[in-house]
Amino acid sequence: MNSDEFRKAGYRVIDWIADYRDNVEQRPVMAKSAPGEIKAMLPASPPSRPESFDTILADLDRIVLPGITTWQHPRFFGYFPSNALFSSVLGDYVSTGLGVIGLAWQSSPALTEVEEVVTDWMRQMLGLSEAWHGVINDTASTSTLVALLCARERASNYSLSRAGLQGNAAPLVVYTSPHSHSSVEKAALLAGFGRSHVRAVPSDDAHAMSAIALESMVREDLAAGRQPCAVVATTGTTTSTALDPLDAIADVSSSHGLWLHVDAAMAGSAMILPECRAMWQGVERADSLIVNAHKWLGAVFDCTLYFVRDPEHLVRVMSTNPSYLQTSADGRVKNYRDWGLPLGRRFRALKLWFLIREQGVEALQARLRRDLDNAKWLAAEIAKAPDWKVLAPVPLQTLCVRHEPAGLAADALDKHTLEWAARLNQSGEAYVTPALLDGRWMVRVSIGAELTEREHVAQLWQLMRDALEA
Amino acid sequence: MNSDEFRKAGYRVIDWIADYRDNVEQRPVMAKSAPGEIKAMLPASPPSRPESFDTILADLDRIVLPGITTWQHPRFFGYFPSNALFSSVLGDYVSTGLGVIGLAWQSSPALTEVEEVVTDWMRQMLGLSEAWHGVINDTASTSTLVALLCARERASNYSLSRAGLQGNAAPLVVYTSPHSHSSVEKAALLAGFGRSHVRAVPSDDAHAMSAIALESMVREDLAAGRQPCAVVATTGTTTSTALDPLDAIADVSSSHGLWLHVDAAMAGSAMILPECRAMWQGVERADSLIVNAHKWLGAVFDCTLYFVRDPEHLVRVMSTNPSYLQTSADGRVKNYRDWGLPLGRRFRALKLWFLIREQGVEALQARLRRDLDNAKWLAAEIAKAPDWKVLAPVPLQTLCVRHEPAGLAADALDKHTLEWAARLNQSGEAYVTPALLDGRWMVRVSIGAELTEREHVAQLWQLMRDALEA
Repeated sequence: MNSDEFRKAGYRVIDWIADYRDNVEQRPVMAKSAPGEIKAMLPASPPSRPESFDTILADLDRIVLPGITTWQHPRFFGYFPSNALFSSVLGDYVSTGLGVIGLAWQSSPALTEVEEVVTDWMRQMLGLSEAWHGVINDTASTSTLVALLCARERASNYSLSRAGLQGNAAPLVVYTSPHSHSSVEKAALLAGFGRSHVRAVPSDDAHAMSAIALESMVREDLAAGRQPCAVVATTGTTTSTALDPLDAIADVSSSHGLWLHVDAAMAGSAMILPECRAMWQGVERADSLIVNAHKWLGAVFDCTLYFVRDPEHLVRVMSTNPSYLQTSADGRVKNYRDWGLPLGRRFRALKLWFLIREQGVEALQARLRRDLDNAKWLAAEIAKAPDWKVLAPVPLQTLCVRHEPAGLAADALDKHTLEWAARLNQSGEAYVTPALLDGRWMVRVSIGAELTEREHVAQLWQLMRDALEA
Repeated sequence: MNSDEFRKAGYRVIDWIADYRDNVEQRPVMAKSAPGEIKAMLPASPPSRPESFDTILADLDRIVLPGITTWQHPRFFGYFPSNALFSSVLGDYVSTGLGVIGLAWQSSPALTEVEEVVTDWMRQMLGLSEAWHGVINDTASTSTLVALLCARERASNYSLSRAGLQGNAAPLVVYTSPHSHSSVEKAALLAGFGRSHVRAVPSDDAHAMSAIALESMVREDLAAGRQPCAVVATTGTTTSTALDPLDAIADVSSSHGLWLHVDAAMAGSAMILPECRAMWQGVERADSLIVNAHKWLGAVFDCTLYFVRDPEHLVRVMSTNPSYLQTSADGRVKNYRDWGLPLGRRFRALKLWFLIREQGVEALQARLRRDLDNAKWLAAEIAKAPDWKVLAPVPLQTLCVRHEPAGLAADALDKHTLEWAARLNQSGEAYVTPALLDGRWMVRVSIGAELTEREHVAQLWQLMRDALEA
């Protein structure tokens, strides 16, 4: 494909995406594909000879689109809002089209320096002090892994430079809440701590970690000769957006020298609203922090902001310095390869730069306030309805909901919940995520897709009631 | 930005990228920015109000472009070819524009099933048996980390489910060559093995790992009560594309139960040529294998193929199963989140699908054969020239070159090498990577950018000679 053909094909891709976005509301939210259905339409072997772009584009409509769940649908209330605003899409298109890689500052200085600036813009937008330094990673999962690796190395005085975790006298222990994201336990296990050194700190009625329980678990481990290493607190848990009390947790972490990592992957976006910042009071006392700009805020996936207070420590844990990566600029520039896991890096800052500039901070704030209002409205509506319950506080945009008809035993209630949620999702009219809360199934409603207005939330509420009838 | 505005802005981005690609040859290869120069042009704070797309696009020309190293330049001979063929760029544009995330098969079935098919196409193209199962990761760095985590868990009988690496009786040991990529040692250190349990196995005159030395190191560790765990072999080392003898290494790894991971990140692309496959004879005896489709092959970054022979083990190490990710399709489908580090996944298969279909396998093979011929030609030219030396075998497309005028002591020779390489790079006419080989600086010439024809290689050779004169 030469550049003229790219222009023509590129216009068609732009139109195809614009048409797709124009028509999201007419599409089923959850894809209706059966397992294996798409695979069966694809040739088992690669083509020897070129195929035309017409054929490829036609296959997008014929094969791919039916297998796409419509994350950008205004009645997408599943998982979390994964907004992909057009301006951020175009920023990513520039990154991809340039075809550059950030191995070192010198391998494209703009890639590094725009990232320095735009992560600092995000720091300011979130109301964080100048003590924080940001970098863009792919996801929260890998960022939390980086955080726990840094915690491990601080607590072990850089054991990686000696015998690794295999040489530690006292085993290191990680603390988190049973409501923290699955990626936290995964990161702790991959970092080598072992499941028997990962503590689930009890939480209170609002599903927030108990700092008192944390303190007593830390003391117990110390008494048993183990070494408390890190605590992962969540601002906005996945299931119910519960808010772990960072200040009280920081009292424990600072008195015992624990690394405090704050997972604000989803809820962190809300901190661009000054009125929400009380929710993470104490965050300045943390060592590391993640906010996914690719969720509610609107940068197209993937774009996780990882902030640290001690970049020198991060670099000491992550850096490598082979001769083929050394340049004469070293020492005067940032080499972000030493701030995370991968060596090669995309120019991800562009999508965030485009988004923030095209929107402006005030418009981003206004959209998030709209969503918070919608969540409050829906919570109030549900609370008024007989047999319906909102099961947890709604500090942000996620509701935990259950329909509880009188006389159903717990197992029957679980069955009832999963059945109406499945009917709702399979209708294609809206998408919600069933999840366990306090050991029982309920339905999470996560509000905040870019196109979701009050009318769509009202439609969801009607669809939920309709779904009760088989 | 609404969809009409997106269409208009999108066309402009397509044109901007096409213009950029049309003009790469007129650009300096290495960016000429000074440290901090780009940052100084950017506002220190984010805008409150929206900016026009005109302004943003103008800033691309004014601020970003001068800070871009031209990886797609036909005289880019640095690092490795990071080809980003137009068709793969458009495939990625579709992924980004759809704004979907692969958390589970159900969150977009096509994302998973196209990946299943296209990774199997790659398996066939590389001449691998049906025993291999593929997944797309971001980079080789994270894939090698996954491999060593899997090795650790197999050797420790899933220590992560108990006390982790902190509970192992005999310390686990990893073996690799001093010529392996920096990401191998980084992965071993992050996985918790510790530097004192990472062995640099001596290599032969062609910089390939000695299987005999490996065997004796393994025996030494066993005798000392340590547990040999994994060996990372390289097909095509970074510095000189040396080829570790996989069959001989597999004899050692299989007799001692070591995990064998093969890093063919760069050179793996060559295995689409049947005549090159003798270079990784024995690969079928490995446990895991990486090939970066985002290098020589031409898929725009990031697109690493990670192949394993035992996907059940991989899933057992990597999986999490919180309630909010469970769906009724589980058990009948692949959930690739359990095949790697991140939970969220882009629809990366599209860029590879577009690339292979638009090119066809034969055209991909023809381009790689062109590059192999160009490397042979340049090696022959250099060998004929007085005082110039090709320092290592050239099995593929990378040359290790030095100009060695008579009478220069070793340190003076290093200085001479770094000086002419810097002059060449700073000229902006071509880009090469200085690196250490056998403790002395030399210049790597990595041939294989999409636009690089014989004439560009001839130009480079002239520029290298010109650069000798200050």
